[in-house]
Amino acid sequence: MTPIRYGMVGGGPGAFIGAVHRMAASLDREFELVAGAFSADPSKSRDMGEGLGLHGGRVYGDFREMISAEEEREDGIDVVVIVTPNHLHYPVAHACLMAGLHVICDKPMTTTTEHADTLCHMASERGLVFAVTYNYTGYPMVKEARERVAAGELGALRKVVVEYSQGWLRTLLEAEGQKQAEWRGDPDRAGVSSALGDIGTHAFNLLHYVTGLETHRVFADAGTVVEGRVLEDDATVLLELDRGVRGVMLVSQVATGERNHLRLRVYGADGALDWCQEDPNRLRLLDPDGTETMLFRGGELGAGAVDATRLPGGHPEGFIEAFANIYRGVARAIRNEGDEGEAAPDYPTVQDGCVGVHFVHRAVESSQSKTWVEMSQVSANMDTTI
Amino acid sequence: MTPIRYGMVGGGPGAFIGAVHRMAASLDREFELVAGAFSADPSKSRDMGEGLGLHGGRVYGDFREMISAEEEREDGIDVVVIVTPNHLHYPVAHACLMAGLHVICDKPMTTTTEHADTLCHMASERGLVFAVTYNYTGYPMVKEARERVAAGELGALRKVVVEYSQGWLRTLLEAEGQKQAEWRGDPDRAGVSSALGDIGTHAFNLLHYVTGLETHRVFADAGTVVEGRVLEDDATVLLELDRGVRGVMLVSQVATGERNHLRLRVYGADGALDWCQEDPNRLRLLDPDGTETMLFRGGELGAGAVDATRLPGGHPEGFIEAFANIYRGVARAIRNEGDEGEAAPDYPTVQDGCVGVHFVHRAVESSQSKTWVEMSQVSANMDTTI
Amino acid sequence: MTPIRYGMVGGGPGAFIGAVHRMAASLDREFELVAGAFSADPSKSRDMGEGLGLHGGRVYGDFREMISAEEEREDGIDVVVIVTPNHLHYPVAHACLMAGLHVICDKPMTTTTEHADTLCHMASERGLVFAVTYNYTGYPMVKEARERVAAGELGALRKVVVEYSQGWLRTLLEAEGQKQAEWRGDPDRAGVSSALGDIGTHAFNLLHYVTGLETHRVFADAGTVVEGRVLEDDATVLLELDRGVRGVMLVSQVATGERNHLRLRVYGADGALDWCQEDPNRLRLLDPDGTETMLFRGGELGAGAVDATRLPGGHPEGFIEAFANIYRGVARAIRNEGDEGEAAPDYPTVQDGCVGVHFVHRAVESSQSKTWVEMSQVSANMDTTI
Amino acid sequence: MTPIRYGMVGGGPGAFIGAVHRMAASLDREFELVAGAFSADPSKSRDMGEGLGLHGGRVYGDFREMISAEEEREDGIDVVVIVTPNHLHYPVAHACLMAGLHVICDKPMTTTTEHADTLCHMASERGLVFAVTYNYTGYPMVKEARERVAAGELGALRKVVVEYSQGWLRTLLEAEGQKQAEWRGDPDRAGVSSALGDIGTHAFNLLHYVTGLETHRVFADAGTVVEGRVLEDDATVLLELDRGVRGVMLVSQVATGERNHLRLRVYGADGALDWCQEDPNRLRLLDPDGTETMLFRGGELGAGAVDATRLPGGHPEGFIEAFANIYRGVARAIRNEGDEGEAAPDYPTVQDGCVGVHFVHRAVESSQSKTWVEMSQVSANMDTTI
Repeated sequence: MTPIRYGMVGGGPGAFIGAVHRMAASLDREFELVAGAFSADPSKSRDMGEGLGLHGGRVYGDFREMISAEEEREDGIDVVVIVTPNHLHYPVAHACLMAGLHVICDKPMTTTTEHADTLCHMASERGLVFAVTYNYTGYPMVKEARERVAAGELGALRKVVVEYSQGWLRTLLEAEGQKQAEWRGDPDRAGVSSALGDIGTHAFNLLHYVTGLETHRVFADAGTVVEGRVLEDDATVLLELDRGVRGVMLVSQVATGERNHLRLRVYGADGALDWCQEDPNRLRLLDPDGTETMLFRGGELGAGAVDATRLPGGHPEGFIEAFANIYRGVARAIRNEGDEGEAAPDYPTVQDGCVGVHFVHRAVESSQSKTWVEMSQVSANMDTTI
Repeated sequence: MTPIRYGMVGGGPGAFIGAVHRMAASLDREFELVAGAFSADPSKSRDMGEGLGLHGGRVYGDFREMISAEEEREDGIDVVVIVTPNHLHYPVAHACLMAGLHVICDKPMTTTTEHADTLCHMASERGLVFAVTYNYTGYPMVKEARERVAAGELGALRKVVVEYSQGWLRTLLEAEGQKQAEWRGDPDRAGVSSALGDIGTHAFNLLHYVTGLETHRVFADAGTVVEGRVLEDDATVLLELDRGVRGVMLVSQVATGERNHLRLRVYGADGALDWCQEDPNRLRLLDPDGTETMLFRGGELGAGAVDATRLPGGHPEGFIEAFANIYRGVARAIRNEGDEGEAAPDYPTVQDGCVGVHFVHRAVESSQSKTWVEMSQVSANMDTTI
Repeated sequence: MTPIRYGMVGGGPGAFIGAVHRMAASLDREFELVAGAFSADPSKSRDMGEGLGLHGGRVYGDFREMISAEEEREDGIDVVVIVTPNHLHYPVAHACLMAGLHVICDKPMTTTTEHADTLCHMASERGLVFAVTYNYTGYPMVKEARERVAAGELGALRKVVVEYSQGWLRTLLEAEGQKQAEWRGDPDRAGVSSALGDIGTHAFNLLHYVTGLETHRVFADAGTVVEGRVLEDDATVLLELDRGVRGVMLVSQVATGERNHLRLRVYGADGALDWCQEDPNRLRLLDPDGTETMLFRGGELGAGAVDATRLPGGHPEGFIEAFANIYRGVARAIRNEGDEGEAAPDYPTVQDGCVGVHFVHRAVESSQSKTWVEMSQVSANMDTTI
Repeated sequence: MTPIRYGMVGGGPGAFIGAVHRMAASLDREFELVAGAFSADPSKSRDMGEGLGLHGGRVYGDFREMISAEEEREDGIDVVVIVTPNHLHYPVAHACLMAGLHVICDKPMTTTTEHADTLCHMASERGLVFAVTYNYTGYPMVKEARERVAAGELGALRKVVVEYSQGWLRTLLEAEGQKQAEWRGDPDRAGVSSALGDIGTHAFNLLHYVTGLETHRVFADAGTVVEGRVLEDDATVLLELDRGVRGVMLVSQVATGERNHLRLRVYGADGALDWCQEDPNRLRLLDPDGTETMLFRGGELGAGAVDATRLPGGHPEGFIEAFANIYRGVARAIRNEGDEGEAAPDYPTVQDGCVGVHFVHRAVESSQSKTWVEMSQVSANMDTTI
């Protein structure tokens, strides 16, 4: 099979997530990096491209230049991977969709709900594949969790607890020139939120992916713990989900010592499940009688988990493999363009990205007003859009 | 040393906690059970007393009878252990204090804040020992956690997450004749709350014991998940603690599959700690550099933990031993009556019990009004009381 | 029920195991300590007895004195608890049996196989209860493991791995005046072995208790790691079990950092189990399909585990509770004397103690000869004895 | 950087390890698969090559054909990856070395010690890179373990326990047409051993890599548990290491329920470490005082671990990433050919492969003779070779 050709925007030197995307794209040899506008600084972009073995002519100083130059080529790019700070997601994605290019975009998808809605409409109208890298849904055991919930194994759902705790922003890192922290702490580049946008949206998406539940109302209590910081670095959000299911979300960037602690627990009338990103090869099931069952990737699991698995049990898979599963889903979607009969490929879509942006804005609004805020208009909006 | 003589009120056949108290009291041979009014039904009380090897004459059908009969004896009881349903805590405790008897009372201490305040005043005025069995503070590693927080090892505290999840009420057990569930689900006997009163107060006390932080305001979202149930069986509570420290409490009696999952995490500027009641011999410390240190009971720990430890490392201690540490604290307090020079014995006091009752009522009020509710009057009250 | 009266020999100041026995005996209020010869030094014995609240007249300077004085009393002791260094087990136990007293004796039961055989015969002939405190079999989840193996859940057994690792003797502690280390390192008091006798016998007994398998041959490789030490402090033993089942035992007193790591794994054709003493409330079952099931004490378990359980799931029980289960078994055996119809009470017997002593000697012999050594004569001996 | 071109021998449909090699080679885009002889059956080889996107002309029916055809091309392969059953390793590797090609070969390297010695000499004489994929040494935390041992953090080493347990051969899978089991169970293709050769050599290499200790003598007890099987499927090996350090190795293919349980524990006079392949992102350190420290990949670690790490802490890396580190080491070795000044690239060499083959043969010999067998001649041999 010929690899899908992609160009990358962002992901220059020092950028963590750009390298992750490149490894995820390479792993199964389904994608080939052929072009890039890695940095706003053309010389940095050039150095980066060279280091990555790109043909010099296909390293660009600007995303617009890349899009138009690649459009001219017979062997031009099929898809653009957007790994810039948040505020650039929209202009780049917009230009890509206008040029008929598929998009793989980091989260949060945009910094305003209007932009999110626009991209959602555009991608839908133009029939382009638009993935938002909520990569945690790529883990096989997350897919297993979803299948078991959908099959009713837990009975009627009752309570969902999702937590995403990190400690890396426990000091005012953004004042020390750390690039990752700098733009995430700057409203002009990050948008209205830091913790909720950067990791809360992952938690929100994971909750929805596994349970299938929509969020109707939110009550958020966001706070800024580290002095001198502009945006929130810690938040608790109460979620009213479908059928009154109770949701609680804890997010923090100042939970000292936590690395990347994303954990989801789902409690139903007849059972519960527990998955933790730092031990991703396991899924813990809690039975009402006090017994627990531990399922392992590579075991006898459902179709989704098996499809997302590369290695037998006991041979750990990790973050890159899960990320690569998002790419694999996109590859299938791109190759199957126009094929109506198939089940939808399993990757996080522009609609998922859009709901995530609305969630962030509603949560920020709730925290400011200290009241419950309706998500309903968002869902309505989505219904007509999709 | 001569054992302290105690009488028990409640704890008849089928009562879980009565047996726990008796084992905790026996373990170190510091207490001796000599009298009891185990059940409102005199014949049940008698059978129970006999089974426990009590002298027939000292098994009573009623707590008032026990108190007055024991007062007559030269070898009468020194202390009364109250292990009845909640609504009886107050009348029994009140009568004991009136008769000059020390009290060990289960939590929540009373079903109204007025009763709580009254007991608090009475015990204080009469100089009697009054312990409320927030037994989880008896664990050595909880004491270690407290010492390390107090020593500033975590730096300025920032966030506290406490969770107490159980699944035993996932069905309407109170309708099936299960005694424990029956009275806990009945407002006449349990008071205004089920989950918050039964387990939330433990979580609240543990948080305070370890961090030393007072709670200023609460926002609670309590819900009744199981149809047909009267009181709440699930709640999330946001706590505004001293100096703006952010607190979150999760309590549930319907978290299917959870046994007795009480866990406390404290995040400071320079470190964090994590303790879980189901693995009580360990204390996990999180360092900012991403390293974790696991401390074990029996290791080289602080004075509090060492004092509360009976066995070397690797020889697990559990719930009964922790409970017995509460009894040990009470024994010391009783034996040292009048001794002013010493450090206060380490056991949960009537003031702890009182604050707990106020917490439950403020949380219920917040959940009904959907607003933040001040705890301040409680603290004020306590300041003048104690 | 009237408590059973016991006297203690050994367990003076600084002795760890004496205190454990006293707590285990007190927990269920089935035993009452009424007499003692706690130390060879009469004044130390007296101080100890006083601290324990014993009547002065019943604290003795010598075990023979205790036995004869107590024989005279109407309310004399029923059973003697022997918690001395190893070399005294035999003379004390022998004198007790001669006096018609039941015995609870620490392990290893004796320092020679001849003495072990003698006690075995005597206890049997006189119909006295003689327990050897292989206390780890008192854990509920160990009983559950045994029941599941016996029920054939694992299929035909194939391999057993038992490990008992400690690190407390990583330095030449016996040269620093540490009492526990001193006698354990001295052949005159410990016997022919240190690690194998002190902890290897526990491992050996646990393996047998859970699997029901007899050992036919052993190949041992014992070594002395710490310079200056006389006896072995580390050993690996290969065991040929019934029907060719393969056994491996690892024991060490110099496994730096290990506290009391006793772990048993049993692999069968259809499943496996894994139990670890430092997490005693769980039993891990491994299924052939790569799924694991975690059973918890307090859950829906077999009769043996349920009977040995005091608290509901999630309320950890530990070492003392397990130890108290041995005492409970002894109490039942003593109370049921003469009752032939009942199932044998579940506690480690003099025969278990005897096989353990033979195991130690055969393993030491194998290590010296560097050959496999037969255990068969021991089993034969046992068959005729019991 | 231009990718290194490789051809693959073996790794056809149904082969697990071939796919792993391809993913490991792709991950960092340092290698490019350009040729292959995937199967002895030319049509299967062709289909495989097509599926992998290879140019038809470079898919060969036979390794000799591949070697000679690629020699002719200007853009021919630089290195051959050998992922066939064991008995073919030697002829393929031999032909590659004769043709001046670098080799990446699966383990065990050969089925006879003579062949192992020959390859060792040839690779050395011809100055070619020859890696044997003892892939577990590619894990960052294994490198961290090695650095800490080398730095003396554990003090003088005393005992090493290495275990590699799997359960996949608990039935006679080789009789059911399972390909992986078939050749591993057949002496003509696997060599003199199954468990020791397939997984014991991994354990042996890991032990040596982390501790730096040579093995002087072995005592092995190998057994065949499953009826009808020809080679051993379970073994315990005692190892006498440098300076009398005591080693124990447990290997099993019939440990029902175990997935891929490779675990190494190293005990020194001053500390210990514990690493488990199924939780590879952690390294547990045991301190003499009973405290444990958990190090995590991505934290502040030594140079080796940092170099081998792609993602920050909390973003799990797994088996493929570790495998890719072996490839990365090989890439560096190939690119630095002739560069004498540098530290040797870190990958398992032909000498490691050779010692592994000798280990297997000595262990089998010991198990047959039931005596300790010297490894010394091997080390001697190696000394002169290298």
